[in-house]
Amino acid sequence: MNTLKILKIGGNVLHSSSQLHHILDAFAKWKGPKILVHGGGKYASALSQKLGITPQMIDGRRITDAPTLEVVTMVYAGQLNKKIVSQLQKRNCNAIGLSGADGNIIKAHKRAVSTIDYGFAGDIESVQSEQLLKLLQAGFTPVFCAITHDGQGQLLNTNADTISSALSVAMANHFTTELLYCFDKDGVLSDPKNEKSIINQINQKNYKEMVAEGIITDGMIPKLDNAFDALAQQVATVRIGSVYSLMTGNETIITAA
Amino acid sequence: MNTLKILKIGGNVLHSSSQLHHILDAFAKWKGPKILVHGGGKYASALSQKLGITPQMIDGRRITDAPTLEVVTMVYAGQLNKKIVSQLQKRNCNAIGLSGADGNIIKAHKRAVSTIDYGFAGDIESVQSEQLLKLLQAGFTPVFCAITHDGQGQLLNTNADTISSALSVAMANHFTTELLYCFDKDGVLSDPKNEKSIINQINQKNYKEMVAEGIITDGMIPKLDNAFDALAQQVATVRIGSVYSLMTGNETIITAA
Repeated sequence: MNTLKILKIGGNVLHSSSQLHHILDAFAKWKGPKILVHGGGKYASALSQKLGITPQMIDGRRITDAPTLEVVTMVYAGQLNKKIVSQLQKRNCNAIGLSGADGNIIKAHKRAVSTIDYGFAGDIESVQSEQLLKLLQAGFTPVFCAITHDGQGQLLNTNADTISSALSVAMANHFTTELLYCFDKDGVLSDPKNEKSIINQINQKNYKEMVAEGIITDGMIPKLDNAFDALAQQVATVRIGSVYSLMTGNETIITAA
Repeated sequence: MNTLKILKIGGNVLHSSSQLHHILDAFAKWKGPKILVHGGGKYASALSQKLGITPQMIDGRRITDAPTLEVVTMVYAGQLNKKIVSQLQKRNCNAIGLSGADGNIIKAHKRAVSTIDYGFAGDIESVQSEQLLKLLQAGFTPVFCAITHDGQGQLLNTNADTISSALSVAMANHFTTELLYCFDKDGVLSDPKNEKSIINQINQKNYKEMVAEGIITDGMIPKLDNAFDALAQQVATVRIGSVYSLMTGNETIITAA
Protein backbone atom coordinates (compact mmCIF):
# COMPACT_ATOMS: atom_id res chain seq x y z
CA MET A 1 0.00 0.00 0.00
CA ASN A 2 1.06 3.58 -0.64
CA THR A 3 1.85 5.76 2.33
CA LEU A 4 -0.52 8.62 3.15
CA LYS A 5 0.85 11.36 5.38
CA ILE A 6 -1.59 13.38 7.51
CA LEU A 7 -0.09 16.49 9.08
CA LYS A 8 -1.86 18.43 11.80
CA ILE A 9 -0.49 21.89 12.48
CA GLY A 10 -1.20 23.51 15.81
CA GLY A 11 -2.19 27.04 16.74
CA ASN A 12 1.26 28.32 17.69
CA VAL A 13 2.66 27.20 14.33
CA LEU A 14 -0.13 29.07 12.53
CA HIS A 15 0.69 32.16 14.57
CA SER A 16 4.35 32.25 13.63
CA SER A 17 4.73 33.22 10.00
CA SER A 18 8.27 31.78 9.81
CA GLN A 19 7.20 28.42 11.31
CA LEU A 20 4.18 28.30 9.02
CA HIS A 21 6.26 29.00 5.92
CA HIS A 22 8.83 26.35 6.86
CA ILE A 23 6.24 23.66 7.47
CA LEU A 24 4.34 24.52 4.26
CA ASP A 25 7.63 24.40 2.30
CA ALA A 26 8.31 20.92 3.68
CA PHE A 27 4.71 19.72 3.25
CA ALA A 28 4.54 20.91 -0.37
CA LYS A 29 7.70 18.91 -1.20
CA TRP A 30 6.50 15.61 0.28
CA LYS A 31 5.93 13.03 -2.44
CA GLY A 32 2.78 10.95 -2.52
CA PRO A 33 -0.70 11.54 -1.14
CA LYS A 34 -0.98 13.85 1.85
CA ILE A 35 -3.55 15.76 3.88
CA LEU A 36 -3.14 18.82 6.09
CA VAL A 37 -5.37 19.57 9.10
CA HIS A 38 -5.37 22.84 11.00
CA GLY A 39 -7.07 24.53 13.91
CA GLY A 40 -6.70 28.19 14.75
CA GLY A 41 -8.14 28.69 18.22
CA LYS A 42 -6.07 31.77 19.03
CA TYR A 43 -7.28 33.56 15.91
CA ALA A 44 -10.86 32.63 16.77
CA SER A 45 -10.46 33.99 20.30
CA ALA A 46 -8.97 37.22 18.92
CA LEU A 47 -11.89 37.76 16.54
CA SER A 48 -14.40 36.86 19.28
CA GLN A 49 -12.92 39.51 21.52
CA LYS A 50 -12.97 42.14 18.77
CA LEU A 51 -16.67 41.37 18.33
CA GLY A 52 -17.32 41.65 22.06
CA ILE A 53 -17.83 37.92 22.60
CA THR A 54 -15.79 36.62 25.56
CA PRO A 55 -14.24 33.23 24.64
CA GLN A 56 -15.21 30.56 27.15
CA MET A 57 -12.98 27.50 27.47
CA ILE A 58 -13.35 24.48 29.77
CA ASP A 59 -10.37 22.07 29.90
CA GLY A 60 -9.05 23.57 26.67
CA ARG A 61 -12.38 23.03 24.86
CA ARG A 62 -14.29 25.99 23.51
CA ILE A 63 -17.91 26.55 24.53
CA THR A 64 -19.44 27.12 21.10
CA ASP A 65 -22.64 29.14 21.31
CA ALA A 66 -24.25 30.33 18.05
CA PRO A 67 -22.22 33.57 17.69
CA THR A 68 -19.01 31.65 18.50
CA LEU A 69 -19.86 29.06 15.83
CA GLU A 70 -20.08 31.89 13.29
CA VAL A 71 -16.68 33.15 14.45
CA VAL A 72 -14.92 29.78 14.23
CA THR A 73 -16.50 29.05 10.84
CA MET A 74 -15.26 32.39 9.50
CA VAL A 75 -11.78 32.04 10.99
CA TYR A 76 -11.10 28.33 10.38
CA ALA A 77 -12.91 27.71 7.06
CA GLY A 78 -12.41 31.23 5.66
CA GLN A 79 -9.41 33.24 6.84
CA LEU A 80 -6.97 30.45 7.78
CA ASN A 81 -8.03 27.69 5.40
CA LYS A 82 -7.84 29.92 2.32
CA LYS A 83 -4.57 31.47 3.47
CA ILE A 84 -3.01 28.00 3.75
CA VAL A 85 -4.49 26.86 0.42
CA SER A 86 -3.19 29.90 -1.45
CA GLN A 87 0.25 29.50 0.18
CA LEU A 88 0.37 25.83 -0.86
CA GLN A 89 -0.75 26.68 -4.40
CA LYS A 90 2.13 29.16 -4.56
CA ARG A 91 4.38 26.17 -3.74
CA ASN A 92 2.86 24.11 -6.60
CA CYS A 93 0.92 21.89 -4.23
CA ASN A 94 -2.62 21.43 -5.56
CA ALA A 95 -4.40 22.16 -2.28
CA ILE A 96 -8.17 22.10 -1.89
CA GLY A 97 -9.61 23.51 1.35
CA LEU A 98 -12.38 21.60 3.08
CA SER A 99 -14.57 21.47 6.12
CA GLY A 100 -16.16 18.17 7.06
CA ALA A 101 -19.38 19.37 5.38
CA ASP A 102 -17.67 19.59 1.96
CA GLY A 103 -18.25 16.36 0.10
CA ASN A 104 -19.98 15.15 3.29
CA ILE A 105 -16.60 13.76 4.34
CA ILE A 106 -16.85 14.14 8.13
CA LYS A 107 -20.18 13.71 9.86
CA ALA A 108 -20.48 14.54 13.53
CA HIS A 109 -23.22 15.02 16.12
CA LYS A 110 -23.67 17.84 18.56
CA ARG A 111 -22.03 16.83 21.82
CA ALA A 112 -24.58 15.60 24.34
CA VAL A 113 -25.06 17.90 27.33
CA SER A 114 -24.02 16.25 30.60
CA THR A 115 -22.72 18.63 33.25
CA ILE A 116 -21.30 21.03 30.64
CA ASP A 117 -23.11 22.33 27.58
CA TYR A 118 -20.41 22.74 24.92
CA GLY A 119 -22.95 24.18 22.47
CA PHE A 120 -22.24 23.54 18.79
CA ALA A 121 -19.27 21.25 19.44
CA GLY A 122 -19.19 18.18 17.24
CA ASP A 123 -18.12 14.63 18.10
CA ILE A 124 -17.17 12.69 14.98
CA GLU A 125 -19.51 9.89 13.92
CA SER A 126 -18.11 8.80 10.57
CA VAL A 127 -15.63 9.61 7.82
CA GLN A 128 -16.56 8.87 4.20
CA SER A 129 -13.14 7.70 3.13
CA GLU A 130 -14.29 6.99 -0.47
CA GLN A 131 -15.13 10.68 -1.02
CA LEU A 132 -11.72 11.69 0.28
CA LEU A 133 -10.06 9.01 -1.85
CA LYS A 134 -11.69 10.48 -4.97
CA LEU A 135 -10.07 13.85 -4.25
CA LEU A 136 -6.66 12.27 -3.62
CA GLN A 137 -6.93 10.16 -6.78
CA ALA A 138 -7.83 13.27 -8.79
CA GLY A 139 -4.53 14.81 -7.62
CA PHE A 140 -5.84 17.22 -5.00
CA THR A 141 -4.23 17.73 -1.58
CA PRO A 142 -7.03 18.19 0.97
CA VAL A 143 -6.60 20.86 3.66
CA PHE A 144 -9.13 20.38 6.47
CA CYS A 145 -10.20 22.98 8.97
CA ALA A 146 -11.75 22.17 12.35
CA ILE A 147 -15.40 22.39 11.24
CA THR A 148 -17.72 19.44 10.59
CA HIS A 149 -21.49 19.06 10.11
CA ASP A 150 -24.32 16.82 11.24
CA GLY A 151 -25.82 16.16 7.79
CA GLN A 152 -28.93 18.11 8.82
CA GLY A 153 -27.60 21.54 7.93
CA GLN A 154 -25.84 22.22 11.21
CA LEU A 155 -22.13 23.09 11.20
CA LEU A 156 -20.16 21.98 14.27
CA ASN A 157 -16.87 23.05 15.84
CA THR A 158 -14.63 19.98 16.07
CA ASN A 159 -11.18 19.52 17.60
CA ALA A 160 -8.48 19.43 14.91
CA ASP A 161 -6.43 16.73 16.68
CA THR A 162 -9.50 14.50 16.67
CA ILE A 163 -10.17 15.25 12.98
CA SER A 164 -6.62 14.31 11.99
CA SER A 165 -6.75 11.09 13.96
CA ALA A 166 -10.23 10.16 12.61
CA LEU A 167 -9.01 10.79 9.03
CA SER A 168 -5.90 8.66 9.65
CA VAL A 169 -7.96 5.78 10.99
CA ALA A 170 -10.52 5.95 8.15
CA MET A 171 -7.82 6.11 5.46
CA ALA A 172 -5.94 3.12 6.92
CA ASN A 173 -8.19 0.92 4.74
CA HIS A 174 -6.65 2.47 1.64
CA PHE A 175 -3.11 3.44 2.67
CA THR A 176 -0.33 2.90 5.17
CA THR A 177 -1.15 6.04 7.17
CA GLU A 178 1.32 8.16 9.05
CA LEU A 179 -0.03 10.83 11.42
CA LEU A 180 2.18 13.82 12.25
CA TYR A 181 1.38 16.39 14.93
CA CYS A 182 3.32 19.61 14.48
CA PHE A 183 3.33 21.85 17.56
CA ASP A 184 5.77 24.21 19.25
CA LYS A 185 7.95 21.66 21.11
CA ASP A 186 10.50 19.39 19.45
CA GLY A 187 8.68 16.38 20.85
CA VAL A 188 7.37 14.93 24.07
CA LEU A 189 9.73 16.12 26.80
CA SER A 190 10.88 14.08 29.81
CA ASP A 191 11.66 17.34 31.64
CA PRO A 192 9.28 20.21 30.81
CA LYS A 193 12.03 22.71 31.76
CA ASN A 194 14.48 21.23 29.30
CA GLU A 195 13.48 21.69 25.65
CA LYS A 196 16.20 19.22 24.61
CA SER A 197 14.87 16.33 26.73
CA ILE A 198 12.95 14.71 23.87
CA ILE A 199 11.67 11.19 24.37
CA ASN A 200 12.50 9.59 21.02
CA GLN A 201 10.37 6.48 21.21
CA ILE A 202 7.13 5.94 23.06
CA ASN A 203 5.22 2.69 23.03
CA GLN A 204 2.27 1.45 25.07
CA LYS A 205 4.53 -0.09 27.71
CA ASN A 206 6.94 2.77 28.45
CA TYR A 207 4.04 5.27 28.11
CA LYS A 208 2.24 3.71 31.09
CA GLU A 209 5.45 3.73 33.10
CA MET A 210 6.17 7.38 32.27
CA VAL A 211 2.66 8.45 33.22
CA ALA A 212 2.91 6.49 36.50
CA GLU A 213 6.26 8.13 37.26
CA GLY A 214 4.87 11.59 36.49
CA ILE A 215 7.26 12.14 33.55
CA ILE A 216 4.40 12.61 31.10
CA THR A 217 1.70 14.87 32.49
CA ASP A 218 -1.27 17.12 31.79
CA GLY A 219 -1.60 18.42 28.25
CA MET A 220 0.35 15.60 26.63
CA ILE A 221 -1.84 12.81 28.01
CA PRO A 222 -4.94 13.42 25.80
CA LYS A 223 -2.65 13.87 22.76
CA LEU A 224 -0.88 10.57 23.46
CA ASP A 225 -4.10 8.72 24.32
CA ASN A 226 -5.39 9.94 20.97
CA ALA A 227 -2.21 8.65 19.29
CA PHE A 228 -2.52 5.20 20.87
CA ASP A 229 -6.20 5.07 19.88
CA ALA A 230 -5.19 5.72 16.27
CA LEU A 231 -2.42 3.09 16.42
CA ALA A 232 -4.89 0.56 17.81
CA GLN A 233 -7.01 1.22 14.70
CA GLN A 234 -4.34 0.40 12.10
CA VAL A 235 -2.58 3.76 11.79
CA ALA A 236 1.06 2.83 11.17
CA THR A 237 2.98 5.57 12.99
CA VAL A 238 2.31 8.75 14.93
CA ARG A 239 5.00 11.44 15.13
CA ILE A 240 4.92 14.46 17.43
CA GLY A 241 7.34 17.34 17.05
CA SER A 242 8.07 20.86 15.94
CA VAL A 243 8.48 22.15 12.40
CA TYR A 244 12.23 21.63 12.79
CA SER A 245 12.37 18.28 14.60
CA LEU A 246 9.83 16.76 12.17
CA MET A 247 11.95 17.96 9.25
CA THR A 248 15.19 16.54 10.67
CA GLY A 249 13.86 13.30 12.15
CA ASN A 250 14.41 14.33 15.79
CA GLU A 251 10.77 14.16 16.86
CA THR A 252 8.99 11.73 19.17
CA ILE A 253 7.87 8.58 17.37
CA ILE A 254 4.97 6.68 18.84
CA THR A 255 4.32 3.07 17.95
CA ALA A 256 1.94 0.51 19.37
CA ALA A 257 4.56 -1.95 20.60
CA MET B 1 -23.03 17.45 -24.92
CA ASN B 2 -24.53 17.34 -21.45
CA THR B 3 -25.97 20.52 -20.05
CA LEU B 4 -24.18 22.21 -17.16
CA LYS B 5 -26.20 24.71 -15.13
CA ILE B 6 -24.38 27.51 -13.33
CA LEU B 7 -26.49 29.42 -10.84
CA LYS B 8 -25.37 32.69 -9.30
CA ILE B 9 -27.30 33.82 -6.24
CA GLY B 10 -27.25 37.46 -5.28
CA GLY B 11 -26.92 39.17 -1.94
CA ASN B 12 -30.61 39.83 -1.33
CA VAL B 13 -31.41 36.15 -1.88
CA LEU B 14 -28.74 35.17 0.65
CA HIS B 15 -30.24 37.63 3.12
CA SER B 16 -33.74 36.19 2.96
CA SER B 17 -33.83 32.80 4.62
CA SER B 18 -37.07 31.82 2.82
CA GLN B 19 -35.70 32.78 -0.61
CA LEU B 20 -32.43 30.99 0.12
CA HIS B 21 -34.20 27.81 1.20
CA HIS B 22 -36.45 27.84 -1.88
CA ILE B 23 -33.58 28.28 -4.30
CA LEU B 24 -31.45 25.63 -2.56
CA ASP B 25 -34.43 23.22 -2.65
CA ALA B 26 -34.75 23.79 -6.40
CA PHE B 27 -31.00 23.66 -7.05
CA ALA B 28 -30.57 20.40 -5.10
CA LYS B 29 -33.27 18.77 -7.25
CA TRP B 30 -31.78 19.74 -10.64
CA LYS B 31 -30.51 16.70 -12.48
CA GLY B 32 -27.10 16.67 -14.09
CA PRO B 33 -23.94 18.64 -13.40
CA LYS B 34 -24.37 22.03 -11.75
CA ILE B 35 -22.38 24.74 -10.02
CA LEU B 36 -23.47 27.40 -7.56
CA VAL B 37 -21.77 30.80 -7.20
CA HIS B 38 -22.49 33.27 -4.40
CA GLY B 39 -21.42 36.67 -3.19
CA GLY B 40 -22.44 38.15 0.13
CA GLY B 41 -21.50 41.82 0.10
CA LYS B 42 -24.09 42.88 2.66
CA TYR B 43 -22.80 40.36 5.18
CA ALA B 44 -19.25 41.56 4.54
CA SER B 45 -20.28 45.18 5.07
CA ALA B 46 -22.05 44.24 8.31
CA LEU B 47 -18.97 42.46 9.69
CA SER B 48 -16.70 45.31 8.54
CA GLN B 49 -18.82 47.78 10.46
CA LYS B 50 -18.83 45.62 13.60
CA LEU B 51 -15.03 45.61 13.40
CA GLY B 52 -14.89 49.37 12.97
CA ILE B 53 -13.90 49.25 9.29
CA THR B 54 -16.07 51.58 7.16
CA PRO B 55 -16.97 49.80 3.89
CA GLN B 56 -15.92 51.87 0.88
CA MET B 57 -17.70 51.27 -2.43
CA ILE B 58 -17.15 52.96 -5.79
CA ASP B 59 -19.72 52.19 -8.53
CA GLY B 60 -20.86 49.16 -6.54
CA ARG B 61 -17.32 47.78 -6.28
CA ARG B 62 -15.70 47.34 -2.90
CA ILE B 63 -12.37 48.96 -2.13
CA THR B 64 -10.53 45.97 -0.67
CA ASP B 65 -7.70 47.04 1.62
CA ALA B 66 -5.91 44.33 3.66
CA PRO B 67 -8.35 44.30 6.62
CA THR B 68 -11.30 44.25 4.20
CA LEU B 69 -9.78 41.28 2.35
CA GLU B 70 -9.66 39.39 5.66
CA VAL B 71 -13.32 40.27 6.23
CA VAL B 72 -14.54 39.15 2.79
CA THR B 73 -12.46 35.95 2.99
CA MET B 74 -14.01 35.12 6.36
CA VAL B 75 -17.55 35.97 5.29
CA TYR B 76 -17.61 34.57 1.74
CA ALA B 77 -15.33 31.51 2.06
CA GLY B 78 -16.18 30.75 5.70
CA GLN B 79 -19.56 31.82 7.02
CA LEU B 80 -21.66 31.84 3.82
CA ASN B 81 -19.93 29.15 1.77
CA LYS B 82 -20.06 26.57 4.57
CA LYS B 83 -23.64 27.50 5.43
CA ILE B 84 -24.71 26.87 1.82
CA VAL B 85 -22.67 23.65 1.59
CA SER B 86 -24.18 22.22 4.78
CA GLN B 87 -27.69 23.22 3.63
CA LEU B 88 -27.14 21.50 0.27
CA GLN B 89 -25.74 18.37 1.97
CA LYS B 90 -28.92 18.27 4.06
CA ARG B 91 -30.78 18.17 0.71
CA ASN B 92 -28.65 15.23 -0.50
CA CYS B 93 -26.70 17.39 -2.91
CA ASN B 94 -22.99 16.53 -2.64
CA ALA B 95 -21.74 20.12 -2.42
CA ILE B 96 -18.08 21.05 -2.10
CA GLY B 97 -17.27 24.65 -1.24
CA LEU B 98 -14.48 26.39 -3.12
CA SER B 99 -12.67 29.64 -3.61
CA GLY B 100 -10.74 30.17 -6.82
CA ALA B 101 -7.56 29.23 -4.91
CA ASP B 102 -8.85 25.71 -4.19
CA GLY B 103 -7.57 23.35 -6.88
CA ASN B 104 -6.08 26.48 -8.49
CA ILE B 105 -9.31 26.74 -10.48
CA ILE B 106 -9.58 30.52 -10.87
CA LYS B 107 -6.46 32.60 -11.24
CA ALA B 108 -6.72 36.39 -11.18
CA HIS B 109 -4.43 39.37 -10.92
CA LYS B 110 -4.68 42.36 -8.63
CA ARG B 111 -6.54 45.09 -10.50
CA ALA B 112 -4.15 47.68 -11.91
CA VAL B 113 -4.38 51.08 -10.25
CA SER B 114 -5.55 53.79 -12.64
CA THR B 115 -7.51 56.62 -11.08
CA ILE B 116 -8.93 54.35 -8.38
CA ASP B 117 -7.00 51.87 -6.23
CA TYR B 118 -9.39 49.00 -5.60
CA GLY B 119 -6.82 47.27 -3.39
CA PHE B 120 -6.96 43.46 -3.33
CA ALA B 121 -9.61 43.22 -6.05
CA GLY B 122 -8.99 40.47 -8.58
CA ASP B 123 -9.60 40.47 -12.32
CA ILE B 124 -9.87 36.94 -13.67
CA GLU B 125 -7.04 35.70 -15.88
CA SER B 126 -7.84 32.04 -16.41
CA VAL B 127 -10.07 29.18 -15.35
CA GLN B 128 -8.62 25.66 -15.20
CA SER B 129 -11.67 23.88 -16.52
CA GLU B 130 -10.01 20.43 -16.31
CA GLN B 131 -9.66 20.73 -12.53
CA LEU B 132 -13.30 21.67 -12.22
CA LEU B 133 -14.30 18.85 -14.57
CA LYS B 134 -12.52 16.35 -12.31
CA LEU B 135 -14.70 17.45 -9.39
CA LEU B 136 -17.90 17.25 -11.46
CA GLN B 137 -16.93 13.82 -12.81
CA ALA B 138 -16.28 12.60 -9.26
CA GLY B 139 -19.88 13.54 -8.42
CA PHE B 140 -19.27 16.75 -6.47
CA THR B 141 -21.33 19.93 -6.88
CA PRO B 142 -18.96 22.91 -6.62
CA VAL B 143 -20.10 25.96 -4.66
CA PHE B 144 -17.88 28.96 -5.40
CA CYS B 145 -17.52 32.05 -3.27
CA ALA B 146 -16.29 35.40 -4.58
CA ILE B 147 -12.60 34.90 -3.68
CA THR B 148 -9.81 34.04 -6.15
CA HIS B 149 -6.00 34.06 -5.94
CA ASP B 150 -3.02 35.14 -8.00
CA GLY B 151 -1.05 31.89 -7.75
CA GLN B 152 1.60 33.73 -5.70
CA GLY B 153 -0.11 33.32 -2.34
CA GLN B 154 -2.34 36.38 -2.59
CA LEU B 155 -6.10 35.99 -2.19
CA LEU B 156 -8.24 38.47 -4.15
CA ASN B 157 -11.82 39.72 -3.83
CA THR B 158 -13.59 39.03 -7.13
CA ASN B 159 -17.08 39.90 -8.32
CA ALA B 160 -19.39 36.87 -8.15
CA ASP B 161 -21.23 37.79 -11.41
CA THR B 162 -17.88 37.78 -13.20
CA ILE B 163 -16.89 34.46 -11.62
CA SER B 164 -20.11 32.79 -12.75
CA SER B 165 -19.74 34.09 -16.28
CA ALA B 166 -16.03 33.12 -16.47
CA LEU B 167 -16.87 29.60 -15.26
CA SER B 168 -19.70 29.32 -17.84
CA VAL B 169 -17.39 30.37 -20.66
CA ALA B 170 -14.57 28.04 -19.58
CA MET B 171 -16.92 25.05 -19.20
CA ALA B 172 -18.50 25.62 -22.63
CA ASN B 173 -15.71 23.41 -24.03
CA HIS B 174 -17.07 20.47 -22.07
CA PHE B 175 -20.82 21.15 -21.77
CA THR B 176 -23.75 23.05 -23.16
CA THR B 177 -23.65 25.71 -20.44
CA GLU B 178 -26.62 27.59 -19.07
CA LEU B 179 -25.98 30.59 -16.82
CA LEU B 180 -28.69 31.65 -14.36
CA TYR B 181 -28.61 34.85 -12.33
CA CYS B 182 -30.94 34.75 -9.35
CA PHE B 183 -31.66 38.17 -7.84
CA ASP B 184 -34.60 39.92 -6.19
CA LYS B 185 -36.58 40.91 -9.33
CA ASP B 186 -38.54 38.47 -11.50
CA GLY B 187 -36.48 39.53 -14.50
CA VAL B 188 -35.34 42.56 -16.43
CA LEU B 189 -38.17 45.11 -16.13
CA SER B 190 -39.33 47.46 -18.89
CA ASP B 191 -40.79 49.75 -16.23
CA PRO B 192 -38.81 49.84 -12.97
CA LYS B 193 -41.98 50.87 -11.08
CA ASN B 194 -43.87 47.82 -12.29
CA GLU B 195 -42.56 44.52 -10.96
CA LYS B 196 -44.72 42.64 -13.46
CA SER B 197 -43.22 44.32 -16.55
CA ILE B 198 -40.77 41.53 -17.26
CA ILE B 199 -39.06 41.52 -20.65
CA ASN B 200 -39.23 37.84 -21.58
CA GLN B 201 -36.69 37.73 -24.38
CA ILE B 202 -33.65 39.88 -24.89
CA ASN B 203 -31.29 39.52 -27.80
CA GLN B 204 -28.44 41.67 -29.08
CA LYS B 205 -30.74 43.61 -31.41
CA ASN B 206 -33.62 44.52 -29.09
CA TYR B 207 -31.12 45.11 -26.25
CA LYS B 208 -29.46 47.94 -28.18
CA GLU B 209 -32.86 49.43 -28.96
CA MET B 210 -34.01 49.23 -25.36
CA VAL B 211 -30.82 50.87 -24.09
CA ALA B 212 -31.17 53.63 -26.72
CA GLU B 213 -34.79 54.19 -25.71
CA GLY B 214 -33.84 54.34 -22.01
CA ILE B 215 -35.93 51.25 -21.15
CA ILE B 216 -32.90 49.38 -19.81
CA THR B 217 -30.74 51.57 -17.58
CA ASP B 218 -28.10 51.77 -14.89
CA GLY B 219 -27.56 48.65 -12.83
CA MET B 220 -28.88 46.21 -15.46
CA ILE B 221 -26.45 47.34 -18.17
CA PRO B 222 -23.25 45.76 -16.73
CA LYS B 223 -25.21 42.57 -15.92
CA LEU B 224 -26.52 42.36 -19.49
CA ASP B 225 -23.19 43.31 -21.08
CA ASN B 226 -21.70 40.48 -19.03
CA ALA B 227 -24.44 38.13 -20.31
CA PHE B 228 -23.80 39.04 -23.97
CA ASP B 229 -20.06 38.58 -23.43
CA ALA B 230 -20.73 35.07 -22.17
CA LEU B 231 -23.08 34.32 -25.09
CA ALA B 232 -20.43 35.54 -27.54
CA GLN B 233 -18.09 32.95 -25.98
CA GLN B 234 -20.27 29.87 -26.55
CA VAL B 235 -22.46 29.98 -23.44
CA ALA B 236 -25.82 28.65 -24.67
CA THR B 237 -28.33 30.68 -22.62
CA VAL B 238 -28.39 33.26 -19.85
CA ARG B 239 -31.45 33.58 -17.63
CA ILE B 240 -32.10 36.39 -15.16
CA GLY B 241 -34.87 36.22 -12.59
CA SER B 242 -35.96 35.70 -9.02
CA VAL B 243 -36.15 32.46 -7.08
CA TYR B 244 -39.81 32.20 -8.12
CA SER B 245 -39.65 33.29 -11.77
CA LEU B 246 -36.63 31.01 -12.42
CA MET B 247 -38.55 28.10 -10.91
CA THR B 248 -41.68 28.73 -12.96
CA GLY B 249 -40.07 29.74 -16.26
CA ASN B 250 -41.21 33.39 -16.10
CA GLU B 251 -37.72 34.91 -16.05
CA THR B 252 -35.90 36.96 -18.69
CA ILE B 253 -34.11 34.77 -21.22
CA ILE B 254 -31.14 36.26 -23.02
CA THR B 255 -29.86 34.80 -26.26
CA ALA B 256 -27.31 36.02 -28.75
CA ALA B 257 -29.65 36.34 -31.72
